[in-house]
Amino acid sequence: MIIDCHGHYTTAPAAHTDWRERQLEAFLAGEPAPAYPSISDDEIRETIEKNQLRLLRERGADLTIFSPRASAMGHHRGDLGVGIAWARACNDLIARVVSLFPDNFIGVCQLPQTAGEPLDAAIAELRRCVDMGFVGLNLNPDPSGGKWNSPPITDRYWYPLYEAMVELDVPAMVHVSASCTPVFHATGAHYMNADTTAFMQLIQGDLFADLPELRLIIPHGGGAVPYHWGRYRGLADMLKKPSLDTHVMRNVYFDTCVYHQPGINLLFEVIDLDNILFGSEMVGAVRGIDPRTGHYFDDTKRYVDALDLSDKQREQVYSGNARRVYPRLDAALKARGL
Amino acid sequence: MIIDCHGHYTTAPAAHTDWRERQLEAFLAGEPAPAYPSISDDEIRETIEKNQLRLLRERGADLTIFSPRASAMGHHRGDLGVGIAWARACNDLIARVVSLFPDNFIGVCQLPQTAGEPLDAAIAELRRCVDMGFVGLNLNPDPSGGKWNSPPITDRYWYPLYEAMVELDVPAMVHVSASCTPVFHATGAHYMNADTTAFMQLIQGDLFADLPELRLIIPHGGGAVPYHWGRYRGLADMLKKPSLDTHVMRNVYFDTCVYHQPGINLLFEVIDLDNILFGSEMVGAVRGIDPRTGHYFDDTKRYVDALDLSDKQREQVYSGNARRVYPRLDAALKARGL
Repeated sequence: MIIDCHGHYTTAPAAHTDWRERQLEAFLAGEPAPAYPSISDDEIRETIEKNQLRLLRERGADLTIFSPRASAMGHHRGDLGVGIAWARACNDLIARVVSLFPDNFIGVCQLPQTAGEPLDAAIAELRRCVDMGFVGLNLNPDPSGGKWNSPPITDRYWYPLYEAMVELDVPAMVHVSASCTPVFHATGAHYMNADTTAFMQLIQGDLFADLPELRLIIPHGGGAVPYHWGRYRGLADMLKKPSLDTHVMRNVYFDTCVYHQPGINLLFEVIDLDNILFGSEMVGAVRGIDPRTGHYFDDTKRYVDALDLSDKQREQVYSGNARRVYPRLDAALKARGL
Repeated sequence: MIIDCHGHYTTAPAAHTDWRERQLEAFLAGEPAPAYPSISDDEIRETIEKNQLRLLRERGADLTIFSPRASAMGHHRGDLGVGIAWARACNDLIARVVSLFPDNFIGVCQLPQTAGEPLDAAIAELRRCVDMGFVGLNLNPDPSGGKWNSPPITDRYWYPLYEAMVELDVPAMVHVSASCTPVFHATGAHYMNADTTAFMQLIQGDLFADLPELRLIIPHGGGAVPYHWGRYRGLADMLKKPSLDTHVMRNVYFDTCVYHQPGINLLFEVIDLDNILFGSEMVGAVRGIDPRTGHYFDDTKRYVDALDLSDKQREQVYSGNARRVYPRLDAALKARGL
């Protein structure tokens, strides 16, 4: 079984994304949001069958851990009330995809997060989504969209959410949303920077000493981290922290969203296999075909398949690690005899 | 000959760094800065001989392209007048190091930059330093120290400086300074993020179409870029830009400040040899010894030596590329018969 841990609903029906714009317009006008539109099952089916499901099948994967479009979370837009309604709408849509294609998708939720606000609404939405069968969440370390005015992810500000995660036994993917500054291109800079920043915060802090059961996935192959693994090992040493193996890597996982063979080779060379989850971010940031290979840049399964791994190792990366990191996914699969 | 393109005077005499603090205190108190202290040649000699020069010799390199301590540039502190005085003090100290050790160091300057201010003072300081024999400059793409409120480096705001660089035939290393937010660790996050961000800005813009002779060095092995080379090639394609080879890589160079063998291997696998300059950032961000190798993390020459390169290729990375990118360095060496 091949599980893709990182897929977003980037192809949601136009009525859904149009409603978001009308919701924000109403907020700015001081008016109540319009009613959420009616979207048929057929419309949802079409957006999935033509895109994610087609590619999943073409590439030979089975199941995607599926969440709302990351760049559209837009935690910096509107206020917390707007964010609550938007997160519910997005998560309910994911729940519908999962109910239509239960063999191929399982849900991860977006949270309502507003910089400077407490996390109660985020925790409530997480609980609601777990009740609907979701197995994890996306946590935005910078809900300001590039201003970076929230505390580091090791700060106690985040602990109530972490405690709920531990209680519910769900991991978070640390994933920013759109950038509201022209300085940071969203998928080319802001995403990578957030991954790198989050990892360095984890080195500086002692989060997992406090919460040894907390699990975080850092996407996009860990940003700059594996490429600079020596720097991070050296910085941990300079900061008089324990070795990264025990200080961070018992609780942190990287996905394989690295879009060329040399990058994937490096990831597997420096990061323990237990810490790598197959992912593609498909349909996502990079949608084209690599002229050098004739294949999609984001067809990361090809790169992983090209590695010299044993069957057991391959099984770990393709499904075993995901089932361990997302126990609710494992339970759902076992309930189906898988 | 082995040229290290990336060294900072991180071991400057205490009187120099103490003066900086007194200068800032005076600024806050609305008083004139105290007189700059007298620092003897012997004091400077000692800080260099015991540190950079010792390590240069131990590691078998010859000459360092040497600039003021990057994290101490602190463009976000004080105002432009404070920055002008501080840049002059730092650059004058570099000039003294170079005059004491002309065979081993050549100067690159720090600029006075204040977010939102024009670049006239920076250009004036660059001209002053080039007149003193400096061969390049460090350009801070985020003089705010983590607020990122300056325009992208492709913006016309920066063009007057770029035009001076082209006129003077000097390249810039794109290098941020300290971070004023706890979110970004300086050397573990802010530096890497700036490298990645700058490269993505160059993909989005058309800077080198306007200024085909401009040359930029992106340090720390290019941040996250080589590891995600497929992503960047794919993003250029999605943005309908020309191939990175022609759009960016005729004008952009990466150093070898990547502190483990797998990272260096990847850098040389994906980036054309013409675009790689040997560098160590020594004495810099990571000062310890890697327990896995028994050698300093930042002894990057060991990693480069371990590559399977021809003599000609090795010469390119160790000196040929630096002499091409820094023509004033080449001229200075030729004047000495080197």
